[in-house]
Amino acid sequence: MTIYADETVDDLQVGSLRLIQKKNGFKFGTDAVLLSDFAKALPSKRTLDLCTGSGIVPILLSAKTAAPEIHALEIQHDIADMARRSVELNGLEERIFVKEGNLCDGFSIYKKRSFDVITCNPPYMRAGAGILNKNDSKIISRHEVMCSLEDIISVSSGLLTLGGHLVMVHRPSRLSDIISLMRRYKTEPKRIRFVHKTAAAEPTLVLLDGLFGAKSDVRILPPLLLQNERGGESDELKAIYSRNS
Amino acid sequence: MTIYADETVDDLQVGSLRLIQKKNGFKFGTDAVLLSDFAKALPSKRTLDLCTGSGIVPILLSAKTAAPEIHALEIQHDIADMARRSVELNGLEERIFVKEGNLCDGFSIYKKRSFDVITCNPPYMRAGAGILNKNDSKIISRHEVMCSLEDIISVSSGLLTLGGHLVMVHRPSRLSDIISLMRRYKTEPKRIRFVHKTAAAEPTLVLLDGLFGAKSDVRILPPLLLQNERGGESDELKAIYSRNS
Repeated sequence: MTIYADETVDDLQVGSLRLIQKKNGFKFGTDAVLLSDFAKALPSKRTLDLCTGSGIVPILLSAKTAAPEIHALEIQHDIADMARRSVELNGLEERIFVKEGNLCDGFSIYKKRSFDVITCNPPYMRAGAGILNKNDSKIISRHEVMCSLEDIISVSSGLLTLGGHLVMVHRPSRLSDIISLMRRYKTEPKRIRFVHKTAAAEPTLVLLDGLFGAKSDVRILPPLLLQNERGGESDELKAIYSRNS
Repeated sequence: MTIYADETVDDLQVGSLRLIQKKNGFKFGTDAVLLSDFAKALPSKRTLDLCTGSGIVPILLSAKTAAPEIHALEIQHDIADMARRSVELNGLEERIFVKEGNLCDGFSIYKKRSFDVITCNPPYMRAGAGILNKNDSKIISRHEVMCSLEDIISVSSGLLTLGGHLVMVHRPSRLSDIISLMRRYKTEPKRIRFVHKTAAAEPTLVLLDGLFGAKSDVRILPPLLLQNERGGESDELKAIYSRNS
């Protein structure tokens, strides 16, 4: 097992799971943990994680769910290789299958209508005029330079079984874009949950669960609050982290 | 001033405002008060309230804003007449102008692109197979039998000035419908606020502010909580009611 000089191995505090990450690269955050938690109750024979990065979501899902087969797609060669080594480090080669590829080519990489659950913690920022170096790994993780929100939703909708779930985390400011695009591709948002630091604050993240082929009517869940009244971690956040184990 | 035997005159506890309502008809609720509060900071020369019913929203807006001209449209003859008498009862005939008419005919009743703010507390329920008597006044107030959500949004978008606001209150389950329809008619949701009994509960209402001709990106506000920890009215709800005066 090779660990490169620019990498660290982090203990996920979930069973004995560990994760390889780039020391100076994009590190996984609360969003990946909340996404895995939001998706974990959905039964799935075949799960796919798009924009998988370090593989954090598939690795957490392997602990949180009984999903027998979790696929993961990552566009960046070095990062896909790193995710594959994390899978190996945890002995999960028979449940998690990492591929390197562009999700825009999703239909040539995977069979249509073959996934029950697709998760995605995508780049949050629109590809803007301010981006100078499109080859920078952190920029690819954060900005829609290699794939747009529409690419993610259109490809996911084609890969989902009828009744399959697309589960995403994103910035609340993109809510209307996500809802409109999901509908355009027949994936109806059925559960939405906003994540707030406190009940007095605007949300910092939104979790969405869209059902391919479903009818209208969405359920908005109670806010997910990250802090308690004393400024510490909320009981729910603690439970989400501890339910990992 | 005629008050009929089937009517009551209720003190709005806002200055000396009073409102005529049918004893056994549809009574205004917290939603109308929250809608007026949500719309009150928007500057407006000409405001229009659709589905005005008793006229509660225009009457509250007359107290909460400096809007010089507030129009109100109501499809039911008796209810429009009652709203007109409430306006008279409060001496507001020079600021509030009630018309009887179907909002589907909005473009023949009002001039296109002539309102800065349009408010609407519409019927919440889809027109369903279960509705037997389409002439029942309460059914018209609660179900989309005389106008659909799409009628409301398409007509509003045609009546708004560029940059004008469509402010609505609705059930959260219709969020995706509202967002999709607003976008179809170029009215971009810019502010959304969910109303919850407590932070542990799913929202019971959603307030939306769409801007005609605006670009994407929506702001989700902190949850509006109706109760405090002791089960009483929250400070914010108290302030909304007291700011009325």
